[in-house]
Amino acid sequence: MEQNKIPQATAKRLPLYYRFLNNLYQQGKKRVSSKELSEAVKVDSATIRRDFSYFGALGKKGYGYNVEYLLGFFRSTLDQHEITEVALIGVGNLGTAFLKYSFLKNNNIRITKAFDKDPNKVGTEVEGVPIYSIDEMDKHLGHIRVAILAIPASEADAVTDILVKHGIIGILNFTPARITVPKHVRVHHIDFAVELQALVYFLKHYPLEKDE
Amino acid sequence: MEQNKIPQATAKRLPLYYRFLNNLYQQGKKRVSSKELSEAVKVDSATIRRDFSYFGALGKKGYGYNVEYLLGFFRSTLDQHEITEVALIGVGNLGTAFLKYSFLKNNNIRITKAFDKDPNKVGTEVEGVPIYSIDEMDKHLGHIRVAILAIPASEADAVTDILVKHGIIGILNFTPARITVPKHVRVHHIDFAVELQALVYFLKHYPLEKDE
Repeated sequence: MEQNKIPQATAKRLPLYYRFLNNLYQQGKKRVSSKELSEAVKVDSATIRRDFSYFGALGKKGYGYNVEYLLGFFRSTLDQHEITEVALIGVGNLGTAFLKYSFLKNNNIRITKAFDKDPNKVGTEVEGVPIYSIDEMDKHLGHIRVAILAIPASEADAVTDILVKHGIIGILNFTPARITVPKHVRVHHIDFAVELQALVYFLKHYPLEKDE
Repeated sequence: MEQNKIPQATAKRLPLYYRFLNNLYQQGKKRVSSKELSEAVKVDSATIRRDFSYFGALGKKGYGYNVEYLLGFFRSTLDQHEITEVALIGVGNLGTAFLKYSFLKNNNIRITKAFDKDPNKVGTEVEGVPIYSIDEMDKHLGHIRVAILAIPASEADAVTDILVKHGIIGILNFTPARITVPKHVRVHHIDFAVELQALVYFLKHYPLEKDE
């Protein structure tokens, strides 16, 4: 199912809606109001209603949304029927946290291969995922198109070049380095220091109201 | 220095600009164009110019922006003169990655205390940060107002309640749980599964153009 282009901000919330609806469905719930959804996913209900209207999902007043219908819709939209394989680059503390992160097991994205330069790790498995040498990415990446970068910043550019050369088109970059890639490669960047600074900045400049 | 309210999207980019300008300054650079900035921080130059215009920083055509002036401006805006102490809750793989993340040392945010429930970790230090028992947060949080949550999702709500009771007003939540907090508490949520799903979704629905 291909839908019209929706705003990127809306698209970013889809996985969140999907996970919550899937939980409701597992619990046997048949319908959900935008208010309940709002409280669960912490997105205001006006935004939820607007988001849903982009996919033509219109809640009924006093009834809410049909969970199964919504879930079917999101599943096709998010291509949950199709497994996406991901390579993890770097099996240090952060990389290991990823491999152990059980919520990744609930969706159709799988880290199937990991790479590290530590010879003590190469050849072993973590959570069933084999660890290969980072010097042999050319041999082992295969058809994988998405990579998580969890290596030191100083190594980010050289490793990225190799990833791109071997067909990676999407990178979730956890290094503080702003990596340079060709135009066809999408990089999403999560920088811990920036996230923490942004939180502190918001706390100082946009203090929230106290409860009465 | 208190400036007018700026859009949240702009505010989120400030730490990024700050870090890059600080690097330039260390390298002795006197000025920077919005194009150079754009390439380094991966934000398009029209957005940079609009962002900067909110703080009254107007680049000169053919000259660009004065690095030292901008840096002074960002430093006061981001309160870089003032140290913010942060508590890390959970010293597993993710928490340890945080403690070892050297880029946090370049700004004025410090993780000064960590908490874990593992008796083998309590009483030790990682990267100079003491680890206390998670059952003694009441004794040790002191004046800290910001916490990083890196614990299993199942423990998130109970721990959050204790944090809020002891004065925490900002939480960087790395658990997949959508925690419930009073209105005055700001939560920024980073969910690995959602980030990865969003990247895969964008790759499928918004493919980027190939280089010619």
